[in-house]
Amino acid sequence: MPDWLQHRAHALPGATAAVLADGTVLTYAELDARVAGLAAVLETRGIAAGHHVALLALNSLEFVEAVHAVTRLDAVLVPLNARLTPAELAYQLENCRARLLLTHAPTAALAREAAASTETPIFELGGETTGPGGTQPGRSVRTHDPAAPHSIIYTSGTTGRPKGAILTYENFAASAAASAYNMGVLPGDRWLACMPLFHVGGLSIVLRSAIYGTAVVIHPAFDEHAVNRALRDEGVSLLSVVPTMLQRMLDAGALPYPPSVRGVLVGGGPVTRDLLARALERGLPVLQTYGLSEAASQVTTLSPGDALTHTGSAGKPLLCTRLRIDAPAGEPGEILVSGVTVTAGYLGNPEATARALRDGWLHTGDIGRLDPEGFLYVLDRRDDLIVTGGENVYPAEVEGHLLQHPAVEAAAVVGIPDARWGQAVAAALVLRTPSEDPAATFDAYLRERIAPYKLPRRYLVTGSLPATASGKIQRHIVRTLFT
Amino acid sequence: MPDWLQHRAHALPGATAAVLADGTVLTYAELDARVAGLAAVLETRGIAAGHHVALLALNSLEFVEAVHAVTRLDAVLVPLNARLTPAELAYQLENCRARLLLTHAPTAALAREAAASTETPIFELGGETTGPGGTQPGRSVRTHDPAAPHSIIYTSGTTGRPKGAILTYENFAASAAASAYNMGVLPGDRWLACMPLFHVGGLSIVLRSAIYGTAVVIHPAFDEHAVNRALRDEGVSLLSVVPTMLQRMLDAGALPYPPSVRGVLVGGGPVTRDLLARALERGLPVLQTYGLSEAASQVTTLSPGDALTHTGSAGKPLLCTRLRIDAPAGEPGEILVSGVTVTAGYLGNPEATARALRDGWLHTGDIGRLDPEGFLYVLDRRDDLIVTGGENVYPAEVEGHLLQHPAVEAAAVVGIPDARWGQAVAAALVLRTPSEDPAATFDAYLRERIAPYKLPRRYLVTGSLPATASGKIQRHIVRTLFT
Repeated sequence: MPDWLQHRAHALPGATAAVLADGTVLTYAELDARVAGLAAVLETRGIAAGHHVALLALNSLEFVEAVHAVTRLDAVLVPLNARLTPAELAYQLENCRARLLLTHAPTAALAREAAASTETPIFELGGETTGPGGTQPGRSVRTHDPAAPHSIIYTSGTTGRPKGAILTYENFAASAAASAYNMGVLPGDRWLACMPLFHVGGLSIVLRSAIYGTAVVIHPAFDEHAVNRALRDEGVSLLSVVPTMLQRMLDAGALPYPPSVRGVLVGGGPVTRDLLARALERGLPVLQTYGLSEAASQVTTLSPGDALTHTGSAGKPLLCTRLRIDAPAGEPGEILVSGVTVTAGYLGNPEATARALRDGWLHTGDIGRLDPEGFLYVLDRRDDLIVTGGENVYPAEVEGHLLQHPAVEAAAVVGIPDARWGQAVAAALVLRTPSEDPAATFDAYLRERIAPYKLPRRYLVTGSLPATASGKIQRHIVRTLFT
Repeated sequence: MPDWLQHRAHALPGATAAVLADGTVLTYAELDARVAGLAAVLETRGIAAGHHVALLALNSLEFVEAVHAVTRLDAVLVPLNARLTPAELAYQLENCRARLLLTHAPTAALAREAAASTETPIFELGGETTGPGGTQPGRSVRTHDPAAPHSIIYTSGTTGRPKGAILTYENFAASAAASAYNMGVLPGDRWLACMPLFHVGGLSIVLRSAIYGTAVVIHPAFDEHAVNRALRDEGVSLLSVVPTMLQRMLDAGALPYPPSVRGVLVGGGPVTRDLLARALERGLPVLQTYGLSEAASQVTTLSPGDALTHTGSAGKPLLCTRLRIDAPAGEPGEILVSGVTVTAGYLGNPEATARALRDGWLHTGDIGRLDPEGFLYVLDRRDDLIVTGGENVYPAEVEGHLLQHPAVEAAAVVGIPDARWGQAVAAALVLRTPSEDPAATFDAYLRERIAPYKLPRRYLVTGSLPATASGKIQRHIVRTLFT
C-alpha cells in the first residue's frame, strides 16, 4: 500500500489537493511538502512507527496536514471529538496512551485542559512546516503495511466508556474503492467536507481524496449558504451531510443545482419522501447511506435511481461488504456486516471486540430489515442511539451521569424528533427530592460532565418509568411521554 | 472478496452488464442468471474449486459468460490465444493440465485439433444455460479468497516455452481500483473491448466492468467504422486500442467525437506526436499506457493533460504500483515493477518465477528510463519483443523454428515499422543451400508450426549476420538491413 499523499504528489504534483473556505488552494506537491515538513518535526518530537498520535482540531488545513503527517511516519492517528469535555477527552488520551496530542489555536485551550491530567505532551499545529523533505519526483514512494492500523476512532456504546475502533489502511482503501464504484470518481472531483473531520465520515473524505487524487474542499462548519455557493459556483461535485443539513440547504435558496453536483451522500438517518422530492426537483442526486465507524463509514448506499421507489431505505451493500439480518428472512433483526472494510477490533478491549465480532460478522447493534429485493431499512439505531445534528449520543451515558446525581432515582434518556437537528435529547426522571426547575438543575450539573451536544433539551419529571417485567426501561414508551 | 458479478446482480440487477455488436443488451440480473446456469452445467462436468479451465473463444457473450462461470466455481480461468496453432495450444493445455476446454462454434474445430493430443475434454458454449440458479435478491453473495488464483495467462519469453502467469483476485481488483482513479469511473460507463478478450487487456475490461458495476461493450474484432459508431452514437465512454487502431479510427472519418468519450487507453507502443495531436483535435482524450500480463495489465498511464508535453512517455505508475529502473538515475535500464497487481509467479515454473521476481520486484525485461519528473519512457520492449497489431511476437521463438529448417544456418528475426500494424515481423537468414524463393519456402514451413501473426512479412538473405564479439546477434543492426 503506497503512501497515498506521496503517490499523488509524485503522479499529480500540480493537481488540486485541498481547497479551503478562504479560497486557499493547495496542489498535491504543496500539500506534500507541508506534510513532509510536519512529519520531520513530529519525528524530532519522538514520534515513530506504531505510536498513537491524538488530534484535537476543527476542520482546517492543519487537520488535513496532521492526518497525512501521522500517516507518513507509520504512526496511528487518533482523531478526537472537539465537542467533548476535557474529562471525556482525557479518558480517550489515557485509554489510547497517546504519545502526543496535536492541536491548533482554536482548540488549544481545550487540549491543555484535557491533557493536564494525563500529562500528554501537546504540539500546536499551524506554524510554517514546509521543509526540504517534499517528495522527490521519480523517487520511490513509501509503502505501508495494508494490515497496519491507520487510525483509532472512538465510538460510544450502551454500556461503559467509549471504545477505540482500530481501522487499517486496507479498511480505508477498500471503502474508498467501493464508494468510487457506487458514486463514481472523476479526476476533477471536489468533495466538500462540512461535517467534522474527526468523525469517520469526514476523515474518509480526506483519505479518499488522496487515494483518488482528487480535491477535498473544507468548510470550518456547516453553513447552508456557503455550501450552496460551493455547489453552485465552486465546482464541488460530491458532498456529505445529514438530513437536517440537506433541509437547510434547500430552505436557504430556490435556485437549481448544476449537473456538476454528482452526489449528495446523506447519512445519520432516513430522508423523508418530501425532502427527497424537493432535493431531486432542484437537481440534487441524493444518496442515502448507512454506515458506522467500525466499518470505515459507508456500508450501504441507496442510489438516486432507487430513491423514490424505496423511500426510507439506506440501499444495498457496497462492493466488498456483506450484510445479514440476524432474523428470519424479511423480519427485523440486528444488522450484521462483514468484509474488508470492517474493523479488526477495539483497542485494548478484547471483551468488547469479542462481543462485536463473532464468526466474522460485525454485530452493529442496529436493527434493520431487508425487503425482498435486498434493500436495507434501518429501523432503530443501535441501543437506542440518538443522532442529533450528525453527532451520536448514547442514552446510557447520559443516564449514567444523571443517576449519579443525589436527587435522581431513575432516568431514561431518549431521542425525540427535532426539525432542526433530526433528533433532540430528552430526559424523563423519577426524583427522590422534588426539584423546582429540573432543567436548570440538571443542565448545570451535566454541563460539567458531558459535551454540550449530549445535554437533554427537554426534561420531564414522572412518578415512574415504563419498564418491562424484567425491569428494562421501555424507551419507545418513554418517547411518547414527550409528545 | 465478493463474487463480482453476483454482487452486481444483487446490487444493480437492472443495470446494463454487457452490450454486443448485434445490439443485444444484458442486464446484470440476466447475465448472472446465464452464468449461474453455465456454472451449474460445468459443475456437472466435474469442475470444482482450483481446477484449471481453459477457454478458447473469440470475443463474444460466451466468452464473458465463461469467465464469470469459471470464477463462480472458484476454478481458475486459462484464456487461450485463438490465433495460435493447434500444437501451440496443446502445449498450454498440457502445461496447465486443463480439466476442461471451453470453446464455441467459431473456434470449435481449432479446439478439437488442439485437444486431440492432450485428450482434454471439450465443452462447447452457446447453448441455453439459464438455469434456476440466478442470484436471489437479499441473499448473501459468494466470496472468494483474494489471494487465490483467478486466471493463468500465458506469456512468451526470450527462451523456452510460454509461461503461465498466475493472477489472483486481488491482482485484478487492485488494478481495477487504480485504473478507476486514473481514468475515472461513472455508474453509466461503457467500456468497449475490440481487442481480443483472451489477452490481459481485454480480460481486464470484462472483470473491471463487473467490479465497477458498469457495462462492457463487445465487438467481435476491431473495425474502425464500428468503433467510431460506438463512440459517437452508442454511449461508449472508454476504449482500449493499440496505436495502429487509433490511426485507422481517425483515418476513417473526420467528425469530432462527443465529450461522452472520457478516455482512450492506448497500449502496445508509443503514440507519435502527430497521431496524438490529431486525436486531441478530434476530441479523443488519449491515455498512453505501459502494461504487461504479469502485472494484470496497466502499470503506468499518461494522462491527456501531460500527453503533449511528454510525447512518447507511458506516464507515471498507477496507485498501488511502484516503478524502478535498474540503472543510475536518468539512465536507461530494465523496468522493475512492484505492488499488489504483480503476479505471484509462473505456473509450475519456479526457475522462471525466481528469475522474474527478485527482492519483491518484477523484472519485466523491458528497457526504459525515467525523466527528472518521473515519467516513464519505454525504450525497448523486453528481449526485442515485436508488437504487431497488439500481439506480442518473440524473435527467439520464430528464430528457433527457422533454425530447425535444414537450409538455415543462421536467423535473426526483428520488428520493422509498419504503417498498419505498428510493427511487422521480418527475418534475415544465412542459408546453407540457396533458395529461389525464400519467402514461399519458409512461409509454408512456418505456417505449420506457428500462429499466422508470428510469420515474417519480409525475408532477406545475407552472407552473415551482424554479431557482437561474444557472438550475440545485434538486432538493431539487423533492423537497418530492411530499410
